[in-house]
Amino acid sequence: MDELLPEPEPLRALIEALRHLPGVGARSARRMAYHLLQHDPAGADLLSRALAGAVHGLRHCARCNGFTEDEVCATCRNPKRDEAVLCVVETPADQNMIESSHGYRGLYYVLMGRLAPLEGVGPGDLQFDRLLARACDGVVREVILATNFTAEGETTAHYLSELLRARGLAVTRLARGVPAGSELEYVDAGTIAWALMERRST
Amino acid sequence: MDELLPEPEPLRALIEALRHLPGVGARSARRMAYHLLQHDPAGADLLSRALAGAVHGLRHCARCNGFTEDEVCATCRNPKRDEAVLCVVETPADQNMIESSHGYRGLYYVLMGRLAPLEGVGPGDLQFDRLLARACDGVVREVILATNFTAEGETTAHYLSELLRARGLAVTRLARGVPAGSELEYVDAGTIAWALMERRST
Repeated sequence: MDELLPEPEPLRALIEALRHLPGVGARSARRMAYHLLQHDPAGADLLSRALAGAVHGLRHCARCNGFTEDEVCATCRNPKRDEAVLCVVETPADQNMIESSHGYRGLYYVLMGRLAPLEGVGPGDLQFDRLLARACDGVVREVILATNFTAEGETTAHYLSELLRARGLAVTRLARGVPAGSELEYVDAGTIAWALMERRST
Repeated sequence: MDELLPEPEPLRALIEALRHLPGVGARSARRMAYHLLQHDPAGADLLSRALAGAVHGLRHCARCNGFTEDEVCATCRNPKRDEAVLCVVETPADQNMIESSHGYRGLYYVLMGRLAPLEGVGPGDLQFDRLLARACDGVVREVILATNFTAEGETTAHYLSELLRARGLAVTRLARGVPAGSELEYVDAGTIAWALMERRST
């Protein structure tokens, strides 16, 4: 669309602003703007207030680095959780995934990213010193590294593992192997190779 | 994710509000919220203000029904455009598409939708009376129906054509045929059939 009709400024500004959403390009931003204005102005109003509320009302938990309204988040304050185990994840979405497995009752630390040298994300950007201070509080005995099993996630786990082990903590990594419910025929060869290497006696 | 960790209210509200965007489900809404909060809080702030600005600053042009800040939009006020021709489109995106063809210098009317009986969208919802009043201003001589060539678009064009012709206006429809630059081998049979029916002498 090389030559557009003159567009009112608030509409142009909205289309431009919608492009800040991840995965939204010029065309979807325009479609979203038209949709909200024509069919859901109440939703647009709600979204406007929710964005302002979240940006100004949320901060990082002083203990786990997750999003919270308070100094320390509800999960970190929960007395029923095991304070001796700390699970390190990349994002709040990963944290929710682990929680939904019902297999973990310890505490979390959210990196809010991972080491990605190619994108220029180094240890300083992720504030590893905060994680180290948290893990070395004298209560934590074991750190479970639950970063993704991607190149960046593995790099992050490796790097953190060295730092944490040097401080006398037990460091573990999520097990690698065949996913629950899979048929071997359809599992990729890399996973099978891992599962063979890390086989265990029954 | 059946059991989620306790989530701060502003975050929950933001995820919920992002689902008002078309094509955004629970998972993308969560991803968008985390992205904005972690990596682009300034963008979130900008989007919040742009949404409020657009919802409260825009209204429908009294002449063409498009979005505008003023009573009548800049396109309708442009003295260089031919007031005797009115092109009826479904959306502002369609209007921009026609404009970018550089083949039209008349005015527009934006329906902001199309007849869709199966979705319960009837002539009343689209305020056809406003279009009729606009087209019967005594200056408009020809109405070009440029609704989409879908079932709903064709229905809308057919319905409007009857109404407008009954009021003594010349009513035309965009030509149907083989798209520019196509090889016949790759054009669908329906399009070829149309192009044959509507063949013209050279």
